[in-house]
Amino acid sequence: MDCIFCRIVNGEIPSYKVFENNNLIAILDISQATKGHTLIIPKTHAKNLYELDDLSAAEIFKVVPSIAKGIKRAFNPIGLNVVINTEKPLQSVNHFHIHLVPRYDNDGFDINFINHQADMSQDKYNQIKQAIKDNL
Amino acid sequence: MDCIFCRIVNGEIPSYKVFENNNLIAILDISQATKGHTLIIPKTHAKNLYELDDLSAAEIFKVVPSIAKGIKRAFNPIGLNVVINTEKPLQSVNHFHIHLVPRYDNDGFDINFINHQADMSQDKYNQIKQAIKDNL
Repeated sequence: MDCIFCRIVNGEIPSYKVFENNNLIAILDISQATKGHTLIIPKTHAKNLYELDDLSAAEIFKVVPSIAKGIKRAFNPIGLNVVINTEKPLQSVNHFHIHLVPRYDNDGFDINFINHQADMSQDKYNQIKQAIKDNL
Repeated sequence: MDCIFCRIVNGEIPSYKVFENNNLIAILDISQATKGHTLIIPKTHAKNLYELDDLSAAEIFKVVPSIAKGIKRAFNPIGLNVVINTEKPLQSVNHFHIHLVPRYDNDGFDINFINHQADMSQDKYNQIKQAIKDNL
């Protein structure tokens, strides 16, 4: 088993564990992009979001509000981001995990959304919408 | 009702809807940070992640893998990010929602995680871990 998160789940590699239940563990991200940066890691290996079935996704995600609230009570951040990276360019460990990143002024994390509304048209939106619907 | 997402859910404001079930809708984000950028919006108003109960979180999140896979099949992105913004500095609509952002080379979206491992110590990790555990 070469997966670092499976080895953390199994206790072969130590971690700073904040929570555990039958399905998952929550541990500090060793990089601490911001203070309290936490990872939720399911015990069963799934490479990424695409490999997660609906019920596992539900079981894993239902702890997110409570853990987010725990981080908020602990450190009183101005906000919090939840991030799941799937494949390129950001997924660094191929075992599904959820980042909880509390936010502070001038912190070590940033997200930029570029607004492309000015480049869009009703036709373009409808084509994109239809392409997704046709593939669900 | 002044919430723009409640008005979209109620059909008072049009949207490009890719999916709907009893609990939520999935629509194109009008900004299209990247092609296929989709929002999952629960029908019941909750201001943000902190106001979501565990069961609602589970119900909402269990559609995320399927919709992510639909976007992947539609546009063959190199990857996909899931993002939830809670309070500052990024939450722009105070009705809980999940961003699905497919990723392409040179696209309109970016996340930066700064690695602070070099500034950390076992004591610092343990203090942060304990502060979260004490607040769960």
